[in-house]
Amino acid sequence: EVMESSINCAEEQQPSSVTTNSQQEACRSQMLKCSGGFVLVHAGAGYHSESKAKEYKHVCKRACQRDSPFTNAGMGSNLNLSGEIECDASIMDGKSLHFGAVGAISGIKNPVLVANCLLIEAQKGKLSAGRIPPCFLVGRGAHDWAVSHGIPPCPSENMATKFSLSAYKRNKRKMELAEKMDAGQNQTKKRRQSSENENGSGCLDTVGAVVIDSEGNVAAAVSSGGLAMKHPGRVGQAAHYGCGCWAENSFNMNSYSTAVSTSGSPFLASEDRVLGGVIVLRCCRNVEAQPSSNVQSAMVEFLWSHTTESMCVGYMSALDSKAKTHISRLPPGTVPGQSLAIEGGVCRLMGVLD
Amino acid sequence: EVMESSINCAEEQQPSSVTTNSQQEACRSQMLKCSGGFVLVHAGAGYHSESKAKEYKHVCKRACQRDSPFTNAGMGSNLNLSGEIECDASIMDGKSLHFGAVGAISGIKNPVLVANCLLIEAQKGKLSAGRIPPCFLVGRGAHDWAVSHGIPPCPSENMATKFSLSAYKRNKRKMELAEKMDAGQNQTKKRRQSSENENGSGCLDTVGAVVIDSEGNVAAAVSSGGLAMKHPGRVGQAAHYGCGCWAENSFNMNSYSTAVSTSGSPFLASEDRVLGGVIVLRCCRNVEAQPSSNVQSAMVEFLWSHTTESMCVGYMSALDSKAKTHISRLPPGTVPGQSLAIEGGVCRLMGVLD
Repeated sequence: EVMESSINCAEEQQPSSVTTNSQQEACRSQMLKCSGGFVLVHAGAGYHSESKAKEYKHVCKRACQRDSPFTNAGMGSNLNLSGEIECDASIMDGKSLHFGAVGAISGIKNPVLVANCLLIEAQKGKLSAGRIPPCFLVGRGAHDWAVSHGIPPCPSENMATKFSLSAYKRNKRKMELAEKMDAGQNQTKKRRQSSENENGSGCLDTVGAVVIDSEGNVAAAVSSGGLAMKHPGRVGQAAHYGCGCWAENSFNMNSYSTAVSTSGSPFLASEDRVLGGVIVLRCCRNVEAQPSSNVQSAMVEFLWSHTTESMCVGYMSALDSKAKTHISRLPPGTVPGQSLAIEGGVCRLMGVLD
Repeated sequence: EVMESSINCAEEQQPSSVTTNSQQEACRSQMLKCSGGFVLVHAGAGYHSESKAKEYKHVCKRACQRDSPFTNAGMGSNLNLSGEIECDASIMDGKSLHFGAVGAISGIKNPVLVANCLLIEAQKGKLSAGRIPPCFLVGRGAHDWAVSHGIPPCPSENMATKFSLSAYKRNKRKMELAEKMDAGQNQTKKRRQSSENENGSGCLDTVGAVVIDSEGNVAAAVSSGGLAMKHPGRVGQAAHYGCGCWAENSFNMNSYSTAVSTSGSPFLASEDRVLGGVIVLRCCRNVEAQPSSNVQSAMVEFLWSHTTESMCVGYMSALDSKAKTHISRLPPGTVPGQSLAIEGGVCRLMGVLD
């Protein structure tokens, strides 16, 4: 309710339409191959300082341009109470509606690759003796499954960065201080200083992506190191079905294909605020058929929205040579958790099959 | 779609209305204390043989009459691929909408107690230094959290029963045989013999409960040992938010309080069948106010439904001295997964506050 009450619609982006004039004469299969596809990524909703804007944008740019549109959310993640890294990730395929997820997984650099592998394995059908393949694995079992499916393990000591280690030490001191003070008196809750608001002191703990391919199939993924100082074994929204990501191709009654990836910032939340962000991709098939050619086009609407101070996004189509990156910010003077920024754009996708 | 196409409505139970004539003169608080509350449990949807009907019913009866309406789904559960027991459980409070869940937890006799403890701890608010308490813990971390919150550990060797151990050995042999045959030839899928359909050879791997208290608050819970021969770390629907159970008190626009607990039988499923069961409790507040007294009443509708051959349920109100138990069966000649049995009843709940 809070979020709806004061919507601040920021700039409406001009359509970054994909020009295809030179290729319209090419054969259909080639057209499909070269002109389709769009990806939108986020590197967390939270607070992104001006001084580090360049770094954040670089992360998003790299994420868009990789074959796999997902960054290394695993490495450099927040450390849990025991000083270990445990990650959550999930992925959903809008065509099959299959879902793969891992929770509290350690020792894997890119947890979303495990989620993706689970999804792919599940799509192959049953295991021996009619057993149902798993779609959600956690902890040690998830790690062992990943390694047995060819995903290389990463020694725990290589997972942490000097940033995440120093954040851990700082948080540990803060916790001990808070517990000492709690024991001493019923103190009122202190406001966290703004300097502590920055995403895990430079590490981006949640990343997500929404994609559409040349045939109009959508997919969504999310990966998170989870909360700093969380209890070992805690699984966050990034691994929850229906929470971290969603993707659904258009079906009979549903004319839109939709992909969504979310980012919560619960560590920054207070009782009266909802802090988070979302990226959305929506595609309406066959908006305008082009009878003069055997190429069909579709409109891809994409948007990002956040109640946090800022959100870092990047996007590109298969025809772009490099990704556009952007840090969206709440308008000056607005209060995070009580205001909402929405920005987006439209992209024409050529060669979408019916 | 399959389920909707051929609905077989089995017998419609007569309302088992709770008579309260003798207590209507009592003071309100006492009335609230003694006359409210209703619980409905299930011990899995699957195949319950006639020969063991008595045992199944006894389990449901005991489940209803315990202070905690949940059976020991943890103990005697299916063993996973490694021969270990890992359980899932979740619970939801319809008043606060808080949710607690554990996944792939070992060495705890009653996993739903851990889920409940997580829910209770979350309702107490934040941890030191503003940390969000966990609502979903898995694996070793879940076990350690439980023990640190006073829930006694149970040695793994005491978790398995001779039934679950012999089922494990049988399944292991079956798997090895299937893999040998798969390697030898591209054999067609064999139908499982009906003797193997019985729920884990006598152990009931999923139990669930829906309850309403004297003030009209609903709650739901589910607990499962999961699939036999599952991969270690696999988390099933019983731990998934929005999948295993749901509870939601009536709010402004929603005049019904609803609680739901589900049971899937994916090990028994084939491509063209959906096998599972559900218990539902729905309460409409203030259906009829009674101006002559300061007691209000509400109608509690309860039902169970399954596409499996059978489902074992038990239910009782706070005024009943013992639980009613029942094994619901698909009508003779119908095909599991292609037919649906629905049964239910109505109960008048006295002393529901507005």
